[in-house]
Amino acid sequence: MSEVRTPPVVAALDIGGTKTAAALVTRQGEVVDRITVPTPGRAGATAIIDTAADLVARLRARATGTRVSALGVGSAGVIDHRTGRVLSATDALAGWAGTDLSGRLRALLDLPVTAINDVHAHALGEARHGAAAGHQTLLLIAVGTGIGASFVVEGSALTGAHSAAGHAGHQPSPYAGRLRCTCGGQGHLEAIASGPGLAEEYARRTGQPVGDLRAVAVRAADGDPIAREVVLLGGAAVGSAVGGLVNMLDPAVVVIGGGVAGLGDAWWQALRDAVRRETLPVLDDVPVLASTLGSDAPLLGAAALAWEGTA
Amino acid sequence: MSEVRTPPVVAALDIGGTKTAAALVTRQGEVVDRITVPTPGRAGATAIIDTAADLVARLRARATGTRVSALGVGSAGVIDHRTGRVLSATDALAGWAGTDLSGRLRALLDLPVTAINDVHAHALGEARHGAAAGHQTLLLIAVGTGIGASFVVEGSALTGAHSAAGHAGHQPSPYAGRLRCTCGGQGHLEAIASGPGLAEEYARRTGQPVGDLRAVAVRAADGDPIAREVVLLGGAAVGSAVGGLVNMLDPAVVVIGGGVAGLGDAWWQALRDAVRRETLPVLDDVPVLASTLGSDAPLLGAAALAWEGTA
Repeated sequence: MSEVRTPPVVAALDIGGTKTAAALVTRQGEVVDRITVPTPGRAGATAIIDTAADLVARLRARATGTRVSALGVGSAGVIDHRTGRVLSATDALAGWAGTDLSGRLRALLDLPVTAINDVHAHALGEARHGAAAGHQTLLLIAVGTGIGASFVVEGSALTGAHSAAGHAGHQPSPYAGRLRCTCGGQGHLEAIASGPGLAEEYARRTGQPVGDLRAVAVRAADGDPIAREVVLLGGAAVGSAVGGLVNMLDPAVVVIGGGVAGLGDAWWQALRDAVRRETLPVLDDVPVLASTLGSDAPLLGAAALAWEGTA
Repeated sequence: MSEVRTPPVVAALDIGGTKTAAALVTRQGEVVDRITVPTPGRAGATAIIDTAADLVARLRARATGTRVSALGVGSAGVIDHRTGRVLSATDALAGWAGTDLSGRLRALLDLPVTAINDVHAHALGEARHGAAAGHQTLLLIAVGTGIGASFVVEGSALTGAHSAAGHAGHQPSPYAGRLRCTCGGQGHLEAIASGPGLAEEYARRTGQPVGDLRAVAVRAADGDPIAREVVLLGGAAVGSAVGGLVNMLDPAVVVIGGGVAGLGDAWWQALRDAVRRETLPVLDDVPVLASTLGSDAPLLGAAALAWEGTA
């Protein structure tokens, strides 16, 4: 009879469009080991799953004498949290839609597996161990290549009737005009305020195509007035949408993450000013905070889910 | 020792800006008796409370031999659902802010009292007994003098960290331009798509002030092309916002209520078309339904809350 009664770690995976990270995490949210590799996004679902499972196997092999009791997964795509299946995904992960993510990892690793979309995992990480720790409810907005969100109520991310909750980038934005959105719609927040959206806005205003948002950020730092305007526009567009969501959801705290949130003080100030312009007086003091866990957030959220499933 | 083990009815109150309704309601949501009177909104909180309590007392007096075991209240204003206090209210209810709504009714009626905002009560009614019965989650939008909402998850209305959730009218709308909103903000959905918002839009477009939205509806029915445009604009503006919220919240069903939803088929078609323009493909089939309980909805929701508190 095993004497191990309180398993000290769970494994966590963060499967994104560009990288896959794995970690071993204690119940208190301490990352005791981690590995990150590129996601073989073009190689298909089997390659993505095998790469992820291999990372966990390597971490287990390194953790001699430590029992790994469960696996939590945060993954890009629309994930059915109940079944652990991938319902849909962008082209960055070829063949990902339809994959039995939990089932295949369970078979490969012989561990209980729980899976959720990576933005929800990010939010759960911030709610348990990060910027929103101690708050009953959290609205997380992740601004990057896309714009995603998660509304966490009393420790649970509300994933929705079709596992599709959190598509905050696909709401009408007065800042987006009739711009075409990646979803096929028009005038959505993501079309103007995501990283690619801002880079395209700079190109439209200047006639100078730029590689990505980093190029715009560099020009803004160098004093390019149009680059600065575009950065402010991005912050204001996100803030306007966040203010509307605060009026609708009244979260205890808002946390903003994602790569675009690294644009610096001017973006943040424009965002905070726009939130305050929209919010009702009673909601003017809802804190709007930066994500504090960085790239560990989805891992810690996925780990928290895995811990929930253990005794 | 009393032989009454299963109390057959609870009392419910719906305290609005213009009328106060009371009812006796079974656990199954059957209204067995009701009274409606004008709300003495200008006369102050004591008059409003006394009027409401009197209605309940009259219903109890009429229900001889029936035990009334609890009272549920849906009220205009921001209501702290935990304490039953009114946190803020519009000018339609003078002195309402700060009122210990539950405490004063409890003292007057010697009943356990639970109170919640009337839009949340409306949503609970539709969730338990109306258009959303059988669905796990519901997004209700009430379009009237204001535009309010409620997100119901597994039978509970999410009232928010400051009891202020549901202010869906105060989100930025691409249809609202820079119109001044009742909240002091600009460009909010309520400023264009509420009853007063549409009446003002008609006046702006024609130079002819109208008394209220009913006048616009009559002109639209008579073939006035600008009145028709304004009706379609209202449906499209609400639908656009609803579509964005569906992408964010992924409710099992959307229910639309409130007086403006009585504008007829053209308004509804514009609304449904706009919802579909915004929603992601996976959410295109989320049902968008009309409220089925009409003015009984807040009473049935308040009654459901009261039943929750009984054994």
